[in-house]
Amino acid sequence: MRLLEFFIGNRPRSADAAKDRLKLIVVRDRAATGEGPDFLPLLQQDLIEVVRRYVEIDDDKVVVDVDKRDNLSMLEVNIELPGHFGHQERERAAAVGG
Amino acid sequence: MRLLEFFIGNRPRSADAAKDRLKLIVVRDRAATGEGPDFLPLLQQDLIEVVRRYVEIDDDKVVVDVDKRDNLSMLEVNIELPGHFGHQERERAAAVGG
Repeated sequence: MRLLEFFIGNRPRSADAAKDRLKLIVVRDRAATGEGPDFLPLLQQDLIEVVRRYVEIDDDKVVVDVDKRDNLSMLEVNIELPGHFGHQERERAAAVGG
Repeated sequence: MRLLEFFIGNRPRSADAAKDRLKLIVVRDRAATGEGPDFLPLLQQDLIEVVRRYVEIDDDKVVVDVDKRDNLSMLEVNIELPGHFGHQERERAAAVGG
C-alpha cells in the first residue's frame, strides 16, 4: 500500500525515533462542490477525545497543523505517546480479545 | 508540506475525481515499545461517529482498510460525501462563524 510506504519513508531518524507516536490525518477533497464550510479545524478536539478513550494523552504532547491547497483541506494531529499504556487501553483491548 | 503534496499527487483522475471525499488516517508508530494492544481497529466506528457530527455519512460510502508493517499500524477510512451538506454542518459552522 503506497500510503503506508509513505509513512515508513518519513519516520524520524533521530533520537526521536525511539518514541511512540500517533498521527491522525483528515483530508477533505472538495472536488465536486469546491465550497461549503470547512469543518476540519472543528474536528481537532473531538478526535483527540476519541483517542483518549484508548490511550493516555498529555496535552503538551499534541501538535496540530492545518493546511489547504487547491480543493484539499488537511488536518494533521501528531501525538507523542507515553512509553507505558493506560488502563483504559488494556481494558478496551481485553474486552475485544486483543 | 510533503504530506499534503502526497495527497494532491494521489487524487483520482477518473470520473471519480468529481466526488467529494473525506479520508481519515491514523498511524501508530510503536518505535519505543513495539508492543501493547493495537487499538486502531477499535477507533474506526468512533471516528466515523465524530465526523457524522459535521457531515452526513452514508454507511454504504465508507471503506475501511487496516495495514501493519514493521512497528507501524495504520487505519484508513475513506468516505464518499454527498454533494450537498447536512444541516448539522451548517449549524456547527455558523456557531463558530465559519
